[in-house]
Amino acid sequence: MTDRSRGAAEFDLIERIRARVAPRDDVVLGIGDDAAVLQVPPGQHLVIATDTLNAGVHFPVDTAARDIGWKALAVNLSDLAAMGAQPAWCTLSLSLPSADVGWLDAFLDGFLSLAAQHQVALVGGDTTRGPLSICVTVHGFVEPGRILRRDAAEVGDDIWVTGTLGDAAGALALLFPLATGPETSGSDAKKTSLRLHTLRPRLDRPTPRVAIGCALVGIARAGIDLSDGLLADLGHVCRASGVAAEVDLAALPTSPALLGAFDDERRHRLQATGGDDYELCVTAPVAARALLASIAGSAGTQLTRIGRIVVGDGNGNGDGVRVFDANGQPWTSQRTGYTHFGD
Amino acid sequence: MTDRSRGAAEFDLIERIRARVAPRDDVVLGIGDDAAVLQVPPGQHLVIATDTLNAGVHFPVDTAARDIGWKALAVNLSDLAAMGAQPAWCTLSLSLPSADVGWLDAFLDGFLSLAAQHQVALVGGDTTRGPLSICVTVHGFVEPGRILRRDAAEVGDDIWVTGTLGDAAGALALLFPLATGPETSGSDAKKTSLRLHTLRPRLDRPTPRVAIGCALVGIARAGIDLSDGLLADLGHVCRASGVAAEVDLAALPTSPALLGAFDDERRHRLQATGGDDYELCVTAPVAARALLASIAGSAGTQLTRIGRIVVGDGNGNGDGVRVFDANGQPWTSQRTGYTHFGD
Repeated sequence: MTDRSRGAAEFDLIERIRARVAPRDDVVLGIGDDAAVLQVPPGQHLVIATDTLNAGVHFPVDTAARDIGWKALAVNLSDLAAMGAQPAWCTLSLSLPSADVGWLDAFLDGFLSLAAQHQVALVGGDTTRGPLSICVTVHGFVEPGRILRRDAAEVGDDIWVTGTLGDAAGALALLFPLATGPETSGSDAKKTSLRLHTLRPRLDRPTPRVAIGCALVGIARAGIDLSDGLLADLGHVCRASGVAAEVDLAALPTSPALLGAFDDERRHRLQATGGDDYELCVTAPVAARALLASIAGSAGTQLTRIGRIVVGDGNGNGDGVRVFDANGQPWTSQRTGYTHFGD
Repeated sequence: MTDRSRGAAEFDLIERIRARVAPRDDVVLGIGDDAAVLQVPPGQHLVIATDTLNAGVHFPVDTAARDIGWKALAVNLSDLAAMGAQPAWCTLSLSLPSADVGWLDAFLDGFLSLAAQHQVALVGGDTTRGPLSICVTVHGFVEPGRILRRDAAEVGDDIWVTGTLGDAAGALALLFPLATGPETSGSDAKKTSLRLHTLRPRLDRPTPRVAIGCALVGIARAGIDLSDGLLADLGHVCRASGVAAEVDLAALPTSPALLGAFDDERRHRLQATGGDDYELCVTAPVAARALLASIAGSAGTQLTRIGRIVVGDGNGNGDGVRVFDANGQPWTSQRTGYTHFGD
C-alpha cells in the first residue's frame, strides 16, 4: 500500500537496530533474512512468551523511549522467569507513528541494556508504521519437566512473592489521581513529586526476576508473574490447580516509599489488586522454607511468605483467594485486578 | 492502569481462543500459562519469523475479520517458506479497540483455517486494548545448513518466481484509484467491480508457498518472499549476495484477471514494484531447470523463470536489479517497491 512519511526508510531502521545487536553462539542466522535460524541446546525444551505494550494502555504516553524499550523486554522476560526458564533470544516488532531515529536510538538503549544483562540476543523482527505499539516475543530453555506451572500448587504449600508489592500501582495512583482517587497521607505537590520520583521507576523499569525464577525450579511448585495484580494472578494459580489461597494482608512486602505515600487501607488495595509489579508469586512445600531463604540470599532478591494454599470448593475448581487483615478478619477489595477489557 | 470497556474480559477472549486450538504432539504446554513449552525435533534448527499487520497500513480498514486473520498468519508463514522451513507453532498478540467477540470469532475462522492447512499450533499470545494491530510470531524447523538464504545467489543462477505477480497491487490500484491513478483498460464501474472481485482475494488471502519452499531446499540457492515488490526484494538478494540481477519484463507470470484490467505499462509497474504478492523468488543453477519444473509439478505451484543473476559492480556490493522489456531495452519504474517509511 502507498505509505509515505518523512524520515528513514524501514530498511534503514532495521540496519540501525542490527548494528547494535550483540551476538550469541547459538544464533545461526540473525537479523537480515526472512527469518532467524537458531540452535536449541540438545535435551532442552523451548519456552516461548509474547506480550505487546500499547501507548496509553501499558505505559503512560509521556514515558521516556528508553523506559518503554526496557519495559517491553522486561515484561516478556518476566513471563520466562515465572516458568523458571533461562532466556536466550527475542524478536521485536515495532509500530511507530513515524520513523523517528532519535526515539528509536533511545528505545534501543533501554531494550538492549536489559537484553545485555541477561545475554538475550535480538534475532529478528520488523518495523512498521502505526500507532506506537511494541510486540516482543522471547525464547528460553528449560530442562524437560522442570518448569513452574500454574497448575502445580498443592494444598499446604506456602505462598511466596519476590520483591515488594504495590509500587507500580502506587506510581500510577500518583500520576492519575483523578482516575484513582487522591493519595491520602498528605498530598502537597512537593511530597507527591518526591514520592513519584521514587515509585515511578518501579512502573517504568520493572526488574524481571530471572535469576531467582531459574533457581526456584525443582524447589517451588507453582509459579506466575504478577502483571495483573496479586489477587487476579494468584486466582489463576488457584483455578488452574483446583485449590484456594489464603493471603495475610499484613505480610505483603512493602517498600518504604509506598508506606510513606498512602494510608494502610489504600496501600493494601494497591498491593493486593494493582498490576504491573512483575514480581514472581510461587508456591512451595513448607519443608522448603530454609532452602527458599537461602535461594533468596544467593539471588539477592527478597522473598516473602504471604500465605498458604488451602482446599478449594470441593469440585476441583478452587474458590479463589481469601485475604485476611492483621486481626484475622476477612478483607475484601473493590477490584480483583487489572483486566485489559474490564467488565 | 484502569482500563475499562464493554465486552468480554481479556481472560474470556483467551479462553475463547484456547477452546478452538488444535493440538500437536510437540506442544508440552500451550495457551494458559505464562509461556508455552515446546519440543524441537532433535538435530533440527529452529526458524523464527515475526510480522505485524496494522489496520490501514497492511490491509484496507474495510477488510473482513476472517481475511485479516488469514493474512496475519499467511505473511508470517511466507517468511518461513522463503527459508525452506517447515512451520510448526505460532503465537498471536492481538490489540483490539474493544472486546468484540463476533469479530474475534471471524478473525479466528480465517487464522485457524490456514493454521490447520499447515498443521501449525497456536501456542500462546495475548489480547490487549489498542488500535487494531496483529503481531504473529511463527516457528518452524530446518535441517542444519539447508536453508534458502538471501546471500546465497551466484552469478549464472536462473531467477524463478512462484505463482503470478501483481494481482495484490492490482487490487489495491482498483480499490484506491485516487492514490494510484485510474486503471487504464476500460474503467466502467461494473467492470471494475468484477475485476476487483477476482483480484482482491490475492490481496486479502495470500497463499504462503510452504510446500514448494520446503521442496526447493537443497536445489535452489537463494530465496526471499515478495512482500515489498519484486524489484525491492530481489534487490535485497543482490545486495546480500554481492551480485546483480537481470529480469525480463515479458517473462513475469501474469494472471488473466490482471491482464484484462490494466494496459501493459501499468501492469508491468504493478508486477515489478507492487508488494503484497507473497510469492517466492529463488535463484537456482541452470543445471537444476528440469528438477525445478518437476518440483513445481509435484507442489502444484506454477514456477516461472524470469531472469538471471549476473556480475555485480565489482566491489562486492552488487548493483541491484536491471529490467529489460520485450525488445531487450532497459525499463525503469517510478518506484522500486513498497517501504513502510518511504523517503
